[in-house]
Amino acid sequence: MKKKIFCSFIMAVSIGCGCAFANPDYLNSDYQLKVLQKVNSPKDLKKLNKSQLDLLADDLRYGIINRANTLGGHLGPDLGFVEPTIALHYVFNSPKDKIVFDVSHQIYPHKMLTGRKSGFLNPINTKISGYSNQDESEHDYFKVGHTSTSLALASGMAKARDLKGEKYNVVAVIGDGSLSGGEALEGLSNAAVLDSNFIIIVNDNEMAIAENHGGLYTALKTLRETNGHAENNMFKAMGFEYYYLENGNSTQDLIKLFSKVKDTKKPTVLHIHTLKGKGYTPAEENKEVFHYRVPGFMNAKCATVPENYNTITAKYLVEKQKKDKKILAVTPAVPMALGLSADLREKLGKNYVDVGIAEQFAVGFVSGAAQNGAKPVLGIMSSFVQRAYDQLSQDLALNNNPAVVLVFSGGITGADMTHLSVFDIPLISNIPNIVYLAPASKEEYIAMLDWAVEQKDHPVAIRVPMGKVVYSGKKDKTNYSKINKFKVEENGSDIAIIAVGDFLKLGKNVKKEIHDKLGINATLINPIYLTGIDEKLLNDLKQNHNIVITLESGVLDGGFGEKITRFYGSSDMKVLNYGAKKEFTDRVPLAELYAKYHLTPELILKDIQDINK
Amino acid sequence: MKKKIFCSFIMAVSIGCGCAFANPDYLNSDYQLKVLQKVNSPKDLKKLNKSQLDLLADDLRYGIINRANTLGGHLGPDLGFVEPTIALHYVFNSPKDKIVFDVSHQIYPHKMLTGRKSGFLNPINTKISGYSNQDESEHDYFKVGHTSTSLALASGMAKARDLKGEKYNVVAVIGDGSLSGGEALEGLSNAAVLDSNFIIIVNDNEMAIAENHGGLYTALKTLRETNGHAENNMFKAMGFEYYYLENGNSTQDLIKLFSKVKDTKKPTVLHIHTLKGKGYTPAEENKEVFHYRVPGFMNAKCATVPENYNTITAKYLVEKQKKDKKILAVTPAVPMALGLSADLREKLGKNYVDVGIAEQFAVGFVSGAAQNGAKPVLGIMSSFVQRAYDQLSQDLALNNNPAVVLVFSGGITGADMTHLSVFDIPLISNIPNIVYLAPASKEEYIAMLDWAVEQKDHPVAIRVPMGKVVYSGKKDKTNYSKINKFKVEENGSDIAIIAVGDFLKLGKNVKKEIHDKLGINATLINPIYLTGIDEKLLNDLKQNHNIVITLESGVLDGGFGEKITRFYGSSDMKVLNYGAKKEFTDRVPLAELYAKYHLTPELILKDIQDINK
Repeated sequence: MKKKIFCSFIMAVSIGCGCAFANPDYLNSDYQLKVLQKVNSPKDLKKLNKSQLDLLADDLRYGIINRANTLGGHLGPDLGFVEPTIALHYVFNSPKDKIVFDVSHQIYPHKMLTGRKSGFLNPINTKISGYSNQDESEHDYFKVGHTSTSLALASGMAKARDLKGEKYNVVAVIGDGSLSGGEALEGLSNAAVLDSNFIIIVNDNEMAIAENHGGLYTALKTLRETNGHAENNMFKAMGFEYYYLENGNSTQDLIKLFSKVKDTKKPTVLHIHTLKGKGYTPAEENKEVFHYRVPGFMNAKCATVPENYNTITAKYLVEKQKKDKKILAVTPAVPMALGLSADLREKLGKNYVDVGIAEQFAVGFVSGAAQNGAKPVLGIMSSFVQRAYDQLSQDLALNNNPAVVLVFSGGITGADMTHLSVFDIPLISNIPNIVYLAPASKEEYIAMLDWAVEQKDHPVAIRVPMGKVVYSGKKDKTNYSKINKFKVEENGSDIAIIAVGDFLKLGKNVKKEIHDKLGINATLINPIYLTGIDEKLLNDLKQNHNIVITLESGVLDGGFGEKITRFYGSSDMKVLNYGAKKEFTDRVPLAELYAKYHLTPELILKDIQDINK
Repeated sequence: MKKKIFCSFIMAVSIGCGCAFANPDYLNSDYQLKVLQKVNSPKDLKKLNKSQLDLLADDLRYGIINRANTLGGHLGPDLGFVEPTIALHYVFNSPKDKIVFDVSHQIYPHKMLTGRKSGFLNPINTKISGYSNQDESEHDYFKVGHTSTSLALASGMAKARDLKGEKYNVVAVIGDGSLSGGEALEGLSNAAVLDSNFIIIVNDNEMAIAENHGGLYTALKTLRETNGHAENNMFKAMGFEYYYLENGNSTQDLIKLFSKVKDTKKPTVLHIHTLKGKGYTPAEENKEVFHYRVPGFMNAKCATVPENYNTITAKYLVEKQKKDKKILAVTPAVPMALGLSADLREKLGKNYVDVGIAEQFAVGFVSGAAQNGAKPVLGIMSSFVQRAYDQLSQDLALNNNPAVVLVFSGGITGADMTHLSVFDIPLISNIPNIVYLAPASKEEYIAMLDWAVEQKDHPVAIRVPMGKVVYSGKKDKTNYSKINKFKVEENGSDIAIIAVGDFLKLGKNVKKEIHDKLGINATLINPIYLTGIDEKLLNDLKQNHNIVITLESGVLDGGFGEKITRFYGSSDMKVLNYGAKKEFTDRVPLAELYAKYHLTPELILKDIQDINK
C-alpha cells in the first residue's frame, strides 16, 4: 500500500504538491548574506541600526532554512523566533544575562548570533547541533531536547544568582506548545514566587507540533484576542507582572518591551504573539507539516513512500473505530507517531484526543478511560515515554487497566544525545503488571495490537519496530494471552540466540554466521515479551545448549538480556548480552555504534570463540 | 545525640507537649456512634435529616482518629474533608456517579460511608487499606497513593462515558497541596476542554503536608480573600465554570453548591475552603505535624528519640550552611525527609526552598542551581523520586550538573502497594552519568554527602539508609571520586557476598552462616556504587572464588545484582541475586517478604548448597 505525500515529509498528506509560493531572496540557494557576516557575537549585533537588524532577520531565515534543507531541522518554530532572538540579544547582555531556551526548537537564531553561524551557513559536516549545548558556547547553559524544562532550569540559575549576591537578568524562553507540560506548569507556579529578577518569554505561536489543545491555550487565546486585557489572566493570578505584545515578530516593538522589563526585580511574563513558520509561505500555511523537515524538502518532488509502521497504525485505528466506537486514539502532541494526519484525525472525530504536550496526563487519561470501558491506544515516542514513568507505574500498572501504549522509534539510533531511544526497555519492563511486547514484523505487530486492544487483563505496551516494514508473509495467529511464552523461530542446538523485535534480523544473520563458521545450527528465539522470561523454554535449553546470546536494540543496563542472564546465573550456561552501553551518545553514526557494541555477526562470532579462552 | 519530640512523631519538634485541648466527645475511647451504625452505603445517608448529618460528622471524625491512633494514618486532611464527603454522597449517586479521589489522603470518610466503616471503627486486623481501592468497593475506581492523579484518571472516565453515550456525573476531588503537581496541572488544562460533565472539587485547606508554596497558591489565596471574586481567576481563564465556597465545612452549604452543579454539561471547578485537621484541636493548630500520625499518638508521652538519618541530614545541612551560603536545601513538600522542622527551615532561610508537590520542577531546579554555582541538595522519598525520571535523565544527568539527590526510605518494606520503595535502584542506576551511592553507616553517609556537595563532576544520588542508625565507629576517609571502586570489608575465598547499603548487615549474617555451616571464610563486599561495577575487583574474584552472592533491598529486575551477573555471564562464576521480586506487594509483613525472597542467612545457605545439585 502506498500513499501520496508532499515533499517527502513522511506524515504529511493532503496539502497538495508544487512549490508556487512567494519567494523572498533568502530562499535562493545563491543568497548573499547582508549583515550576518559581520556578527560573530551579540556584541556585534548591538552595533547594528534598525534597518540592519531587519536585514539580519533575512540572513537568519536563510540560515534556518539552509540548515533544515541540508540536515533536517526544526523549521517553523525557529522561523517564528527570529525577531525575538534579535531583540533579546540587542537588549540583554548575554552571557552575563542568561537566556535559557526550552526544548531548543527555537534556538537556531540564537546559535547563529552566538558564534555558531557556520553550523547553519555551511551545515555539511558541521559539529554544531540543532540544540542548546553549553559545550558549544558560553551563551548556552544546558543540553536540552525535551520540552517544558526552561522554567525549572532557569529558576535554579536565578536562585543560585541570588544566593551568590550577583546581579543580572535570567530569561527563560518557552512556547511552541511546551507550556502545557507538567514540569513547565510546576515551573510557572514556582517562578511566580521567586521574589527576584526572572523574565519568562511565552512565545505564543498558537501551536505545538500540531495545533494547541487545552484550557491553558484557551487562556492564551483570550489574552491574544483582548490584546492582553482578558478578564481573567492566569499569569497575573499567580502573581506575575504581565505584558502582552501582539506583534511578536516586530524587532522594534520587542526591543521596547524587553528594555522596559530589563533588570526588573519581579517575576515577569512577556507574552508575545509570533507567527510559526514566518517568512516561508509553505511553513506559514501548514504549520504542522513544517514544524520539522527532513533534508532536501525545498526541492523535493511529490512522491510516494511505502507504508510504514506509523501509517499501518493509523490504518488499523481508523478501520477499527468504524466498527467500535469505544476506540480512543490518544497522542501527547505527536499525532504523526500514530500516522494520524489531519484528515485521518477528522475521520476519528471524538475517538481521537490530542492532549497536548502532557505525557503524564496522557497515561492517567488512558488508564481512566480503560477503567471505564473504553479501548484507549496511546502513541508515544520512546524518548518521551520516560516523561510519564510514575503514571505508567501508579496510574496504569498498579491498577492493571487494559490501556495500550505504543512506543515508537525505540532502539539504537544515531540520534542527538537529547533524543536517544535506548532507555524504554529498562523503563517499562521493570514495572510490575505491564506486558511489554516487541513485534518483529507487521503481521506480529497487527496481531499484538488487536489482541492488546481487545483483552481486559493487562496494561500492554508495544515497542513498534523502526524503519522499513518487515513482512513475515503469514498471518500471525499467536495467542498473546500466554504471557511470557517466547517464540522459537528455528530449532537447533549448542547455541541459542534470543533476538528482540527489530533485532530478529540481526539474530538470523548471527545464526548464519555461526553456521557458516562453526558448523553449528543455532536455535533462534523471538522472545516477544520484554517483561518476563519463558522459564520452561530457558530450562529446556540447558539440555542441549551451552551458550545463550541475547540481542536487544536498547541499553543493556536494566534491560531484557540481564533477565536472561540472571535466570542462568547459577547454572553452567554461558550468556552473552548484546545491546547499547549506558551512555549518552551524540549523533554517532550507526555503523560506529554497532561496531562499538559488537552488534555484528562477525564480532559476536569472535566473542563466542573467545568464551573458553 | 537525642532530641525532644512531641508525641512520638519522628520529625516533629518545638510544638510543646501535653494534651490539654478541647475535647469533643468523639475523642473519647468509649464514644458511642450516633448515626453511622445505620449507614452501610450512600443510600442510607440520603435518608438522614440535617441534624443527623451533623451527628454523622462526629461519628466519622471518631473513625478517622480511631484508625489513625490504632494503625497510623492521614489525620489532618481526612478530618477536614468530613462534611464535603457527606454532602457529596448526599447529592450525587455513587457508584452511578463516579467520585475519584486524589492521593487518598482525604478518603477515610468516603470509605466509612461506602461499606467499609469496620476498617475505622475496629481497625485492628482490618484488611481495609487507607487508600482508594476498587477491589474493596464499587465506589472506588483506582488504587491511588501518589498525588496529582485524579484529574487525569477521572478525565479518562468521563471520556469513556461520553464515547459510550452514558449519562452521569464524574467528580474529581483534589487538594491538600496536590494541585501543584505536574500531572494535576496538565489535567486542569485538559479537563477544561472536555466539553462535557466534569466536576472538580478543589479542597483548599491552605496546606500541602507543610504550608503551600507557589503562584498557584497565590491564586487560590486571592480567591479566598475575595470570596471567589478575584480580579484574575485562573480557572475561569482556562474556561471552567467556577464556584467558591468559603465555609467548606458546612454540610448544608456544600449540599446547596453540589446540587446546583449536579448534571452540569460543562467542566466546573468547585473551590471549597476547608480547615485541615478540623474537629481535633491539636491538628487544627499544627497542621503539618498532624498531617499523618503514627499509632498511639493520642496518649503518647513526650519522649526522646534517638537520632535518625533525617535528623542527621538536617544537622549536616544547617551546619554546612553556616559556613557556605551556596548550600541550597530543596524539598518537594516533604521537609521532614530532610529532617527540617519549621525552626530549622527558618534557620536555613533563603538557603531552603520548598517547591511544593512538584518533583519534576525540583530536579530541574537543582540542576539549574548547580549549573550556576550553588550547592543544591534535594531530599525526596524513594517512592516519589520516580515522579521525575525524565528530569533526572535530561535536566540533570545529560547535563552532568553536580546536584545532590538524597533518596529516603528506599528498600523492601511492608508498605501499602502505593508506597513501595523498591524501584529506585533500577530507576536511577540505569541513567548515564549519575553516581548513585549506597552508604551502610552514618559515617559513610556523612562522608559521601559532604563529598557529593563539594565535588563538581557528577550528579550524585545517595540512597539514605532506613531505620536504626548504624555506626561504624570510625571516621570515613574514603575518596569517593574513585567512581565504582567497591569496598572490600572482609577478605576471604570461595564465596563473595556483595551487600548493598542497608543490607551490609544481612551480608555479615550470611557470611557468618556460611562460616558456621560450611567452614568457608567468605569475602564481604560493600559496593558503595549502584551505578557501575568494579571490574578489576570482580575479575580478581575469579582467582579464588566460584560463587558470588548479591544482596539488595530493592527489586531485582533492572537492579544492581543483574549488573554483576551480566559481568560474569560468560565466565564460570556462579551468581545468585537476592532482592525483591517485580510485583506490587500490599502491606505484607516484612518477615513474610524476606522468607519469600530468601533474604535470610538460612535460605541463602540452602540455595548455595543447591547450586551443584
